[in-house]
Amino acid sequence: MEETFVPFRGIKNDFKARIVCYRQDWTSGFCAGARILAPTTYIFFASAIPVISFGEQLERNTDGTLTAVQTLASTALCGIIHSIIGGQPLLILGVAEPTVLMYTFMYNFAKDREDLGHKLFLPWTGWVCVWTALLLFLLAILGACSIINRFTRLTGELFGLLIAMLFMQQAIKGLVEEFGVPKTQTEGTNQIALQSSWLFGNGMFALVLSFGLLFTGLGSRKARSWRYGTGWLRGFIADYGVPLMILVWTAVSYIPVNEVPRGVPRRLFSPNPWSPGAYSNWTVVKEMLNVPLLYIIGAFIPATMIAVLYYFDHSVASQLAQQKEFNIRKPSSYHYDLLLLGFLTLLCGLIGIPPSNGVIPQSPMHTKSLATLKHQLLRHKLVSTARTSMEKNMNLSQLYESMKEAYDVMQTPLVPQIPPTLGLKELKESTVALASSHGYIDAPVDEVVFDVNKDVDDLLPVEVKEQRLSNLLQALMVAVCVAAMPVLKKIPTSVLWGYFAFMAIESLPGNQFWERILYLFTAPSRRYKLLEEHHATFVETVPLKAIALFTLFQTAYLLLCFGITWIPIAGVLFPLLIMLLVPVRQYFLPHFFKGAHLQELDAAAYEEAPAIAFNISFDDLSNHGTTMNINGGEILDEIITRSRGEIRHTHSPKASSSTATPISGIRSANSLQGTIPSPRVAALRGENSLGSNGKELKSKQTP
Amino acid sequence: MEETFVPFRGIKNDFKARIVCYRQDWTSGFCAGARILAPTTYIFFASAIPVISFGEQLERNTDGTLTAVQTLASTALCGIIHSIIGGQPLLILGVAEPTVLMYTFMYNFAKDREDLGHKLFLPWTGWVCVWTALLLFLLAILGACSIINRFTRLTGELFGLLIAMLFMQQAIKGLVEEFGVPKTQTEGTNQIALQSSWLFGNGMFALVLSFGLLFTGLGSRKARSWRYGTGWLRGFIADYGVPLMILVWTAVSYIPVNEVPRGVPRRLFSPNPWSPGAYSNWTVVKEMLNVPLLYIIGAFIPATMIAVLYYFDHSVASQLAQQKEFNIRKPSSYHYDLLLLGFLTLLCGLIGIPPSNGVIPQSPMHTKSLATLKHQLLRHKLVSTARTSMEKNMNLSQLYESMKEAYDVMQTPLVPQIPPTLGLKELKESTVALASSHGYIDAPVDEVVFDVNKDVDDLLPVEVKEQRLSNLLQALMVAVCVAAMPVLKKIPTSVLWGYFAFMAIESLPGNQFWERILYLFTAPSRRYKLLEEHHATFVETVPLKAIALFTLFQTAYLLLCFGITWIPIAGVLFPLLIMLLVPVRQYFLPHFFKGAHLQELDAAAYEEAPAIAFNISFDDLSNHGTTMNINGGEILDEIITRSRGEIRHTHSPKASSSTATPISGIRSANSLQGTIPSPRVAALRGENSLGSNGKELKSKQTP
Repeated sequence: MEETFVPFRGIKNDFKARIVCYRQDWTSGFCAGARILAPTTYIFFASAIPVISFGEQLERNTDGTLTAVQTLASTALCGIIHSIIGGQPLLILGVAEPTVLMYTFMYNFAKDREDLGHKLFLPWTGWVCVWTALLLFLLAILGACSIINRFTRLTGELFGLLIAMLFMQQAIKGLVEEFGVPKTQTEGTNQIALQSSWLFGNGMFALVLSFGLLFTGLGSRKARSWRYGTGWLRGFIADYGVPLMILVWTAVSYIPVNEVPRGVPRRLFSPNPWSPGAYSNWTVVKEMLNVPLLYIIGAFIPATMIAVLYYFDHSVASQLAQQKEFNIRKPSSYHYDLLLLGFLTLLCGLIGIPPSNGVIPQSPMHTKSLATLKHQLLRHKLVSTARTSMEKNMNLSQLYESMKEAYDVMQTPLVPQIPPTLGLKELKESTVALASSHGYIDAPVDEVVFDVNKDVDDLLPVEVKEQRLSNLLQALMVAVCVAAMPVLKKIPTSVLWGYFAFMAIESLPGNQFWERILYLFTAPSRRYKLLEEHHATFVETVPLKAIALFTLFQTAYLLLCFGITWIPIAGVLFPLLIMLLVPVRQYFLPHFFKGAHLQELDAAAYEEAPAIAFNISFDDLSNHGTTMNINGGEILDEIITRSRGEIRHTHSPKASSSTATPISGIRSANSLQGTIPSPRVAALRGENSLGSNGKELKSKQTP
Repeated sequence: MEETFVPFRGIKNDFKARIVCYRQDWTSGFCAGARILAPTTYIFFASAIPVISFGEQLERNTDGTLTAVQTLASTALCGIIHSIIGGQPLLILGVAEPTVLMYTFMYNFAKDREDLGHKLFLPWTGWVCVWTALLLFLLAILGACSIINRFTRLTGELFGLLIAMLFMQQAIKGLVEEFGVPKTQTEGTNQIALQSSWLFGNGMFALVLSFGLLFTGLGSRKARSWRYGTGWLRGFIADYGVPLMILVWTAVSYIPVNEVPRGVPRRLFSPNPWSPGAYSNWTVVKEMLNVPLLYIIGAFIPATMIAVLYYFDHSVASQLAQQKEFNIRKPSSYHYDLLLLGFLTLLCGLIGIPPSNGVIPQSPMHTKSLATLKHQLLRHKLVSTARTSMEKNMNLSQLYESMKEAYDVMQTPLVPQIPPTLGLKELKESTVALASSHGYIDAPVDEVVFDVNKDVDDLLPVEVKEQRLSNLLQALMVAVCVAAMPVLKKIPTSVLWGYFAFMAIESLPGNQFWERILYLFTAPSRRYKLLEEHHATFVETVPLKAIALFTLFQTAYLLLCFGITWIPIAGVLFPLLIMLLVPVRQYFLPHFFKGAHLQELDAAAYEEAPAIAFNISFDDLSNHGTTMNINGGEILDEIITRSRGEIRHTHSPKASSSTATPISGIRSANSLQGTIPSPRVAALRGENSLGSNGKELKSKQTP
């Protein structure tokens, strides 16, 4: 994206680029069939559960003016509109914690004013939203998002980790509160439940439920690599494990019945949308003119804060959902989406509900789950193509040809500026070259030469099923939640805290900042393991001291930001502090770190250079080295967890057949599985092992 | 061991064989230094905690006649005597569950008789012990233990799994009881704690504590392969993790203080040994003549049951502690130990405490922990030798020579009938041969050719530090427990249940029966993984149908035995049912299974044939295939967990240098670690891969 500030150009470019894909955005979604439900439900829970919890928090803080009904309604409404006419459909919208804090602050301000008070609070926030919308329009029109290129990995990952910390903080706070008297006395709670004995029992039960959800939830995400059970069951658990576990632990919470009073364990509380008074906010627009002029103008002050917040949040969420490692093929749409966000904020303000904006970690989680989906679809297609070809007694060359065709059919031939994926083609050519040198080329392919399930996995690059359907469906499911309030109320709050912890932990893998922190705590003798798993090239190219210093700086900054959130009012502006990182990174850090090191650790778009050949071959090496003995499911798991890691060029392994060794080297490992590997894998291994990489690495590590 | 029934011959043979080792049994223990404390504390907890729990159970069942003080005293007394003058020092003695059940039955019988009653119960059990001792003498003298050869893997492993099930049952029962009113009203318990609200809180707290102990305990055992923390810390946690975790969770149980009544959570209860009445049993011998003659004679009936039970338990515990896979070098001592058990039973009976016998799973756990110790000691010695040699610029041949010398120094040159371990020597020769063909042989060895830490691990065979010190020390620690009762009472009962579950799970790995059950539940596409980890050759050589049928039969038999234990009185005799397996295995099973298959699944001594060459090379293949990329700690973990698996010939890898390929094949994997592997490893890989094994396996699997 060019850095231009010509009015309207950004919006126009975004719109033009996305309109081309629009039709395909829908057809592609529908083509996926029922499988689309896996990422949809996954994101629905990640989206709805925090929103419900924030709604409860808002209810406590605003004396019941706003509840979970309003936050859910806002999330659903904005989600539906954005998924249909928004630019980037990977972006998930929702009511976020900063919004809740902002509304709390505004309520505390308003309730004490005589000429505003409880009654005119919502009309006044309506004016705040009007001003916010205007500011967002201005930012979008003037092309403010084009500086997004300056938001490096440093900024995004620090923000991601901060959000994870806030989620974890909420989980711990929630759990501790389970031992105390609840702040809001919910109707129906037996007074007996407030005896210290039952408070103790409630707290302990909450520990059991939340840790139960956390561990089983994390475990179920890895189901694909379990050893037991059929592949179908394992896939199902991996896809729907989290919703399933919420059901299971909610069911568990109903086991103790006799003598346990109502209110142990505590459950979600929110008024039903059809209870009296729940509709009072929808007519806010009529009262907006009753707000005194002074306050209408004064609303500009919180509006600037919210506008800055939304500008940053929305753009970074969008950026994290489209990281390079995902190999996104459709264009981004920062300006257009910001413009739309302005309209959505206006709409929400006028009907008296808190506005939504792009959320972290849900947006990157959405992309990750769609990468899994795409992998499944591609895999299914290619495996069946390969099977058919083998039944027709094709040779290796023909096999790859037909697979290539099938692969191309599944691609979106929309974006001319991005070259078509090279992975399959290049791999095919080198393999065919190698196979021909071994005389395999003309023989009909059988399972010995080409192990369908395994080799197809090796061929597949990381790709994302980019479409609008999953976003629309999850937003619709959130809308259904508003109606399904009585069912949602059965979920114990402790399960919710467990889920918060789950989300915090789920957002960590792939965050290089987090991986660097872990790296520093890793025993020196085991450091090489990070390389095997995370493709962290910096480990090889940047000296430990620089890594440590950089990580230390980032950690200190993170703790500073975290500390700021604890300050009552100014705390909401922590994104400002993170934005400050952009100039710090650009003008301050280069004085302390070598350019090359900085580029490895935190490549900015303005410094980006083509990756050097060494890295390419190195990546491939580790890539194929680790996935060698692993079949189907585990590769999928790996893609899910490492998808935000630094995979620079997954598509260009350099397999030259000239240096190939016999297949022998590899057969010893594979004979255990009763299969003999494809010559391609052996070639890759042979090439890399005979090259001088090993020596080079060695000499680099022990100077 | 020859199958002879000539009176006294068995005892004489045992005594002669063990007396030779006696001096070395002590010196070897003292040479180990402070490291001996790791297995000692590990076994101390495994020994003391169940004994305390059984003591509590006995106290409930005998109206306080026998308590944890008596069970601990018996365990300590028998343990100390056995460790000093017993035959097999790997065997751990303790009061076991069957003894508790037997004493409960006898108490229920005695308390209702007018001429026996509560008062003469202990004197009467004294007579039972006299008869039992006589029967045990008879069995030992007549050489009954020589049929131990007929106790195949089938019998031992079924018994092991049954004990694990009983432990797990106790853990679950204990946890469920935490939610109810405690059976024994302990002094000091606040009546408030018996309100239903506190019962609920107590139960939930118990869940937290027991699962906490179970998970952290299991996790700490794997600390050696953790990625974080220094090697020293990781080793310490792996060695002392379980005692540490008991401390931690006991500390956690003290966190909730305010308003929580005494008795939540429940803690161990037992009278202090100095409280009045605790000594009443020591003078039992004086009252023995007051028992009516009819009951003295009638005592013979329970005595036969106990004698059969002890004969079986003691022998199988001893057998499981000396399984082939451990490469035990000192002789067994079944008859002499049974004779000594007779004396111990007599002693315990006369002083009115329940007798001890050899216990499962503690005895095999003891051997496993000593294998870990021996590995550490050997490793430490060889690594330092290798380092010294490399400093002296020795070449590879000289290096191995000096390591061989160091290794031999640490061996026990006692047992002439067992050949000295071949592992180090053979490996050395083949490696040297290979290295010379590559020109490495005359160059000074550096870290590139010989990676000290890794290569030493590959060289080491499984060996056990056989000595008497750890057994003596753990028995002394149990004795200290009697005095330290007030401290022990601080442990919550729920931690105890967690520990029971921990013991049940810890006893599973290496049990081939258990592994076969898992194997049947493994998805077909992942079955090969079992091979990589467990050295289960049967997977290759026995068709799935036969494995399934054999495992099904064994499972049905296990459930039958488990069911029998639920029958009130006859239940104690479940070992009889297991002994029945011996003729079933010998005369009945051969009708249903092919001889070769039966031999693979359950090799009996009378069928044993030299392992065929195919298996040897296969074992080595998988052995080295998996440990290839793993360093130090993980290999140790593997030894601990797999040590009871089927490792037939760990010492004879057939590395022929004639078929060796260049090192290249392996370098690709290893270059990631920045080390270039030793030529030996490459040779092993090359040999195995070029051989016809791969093809053979393939054709066998898909006929």
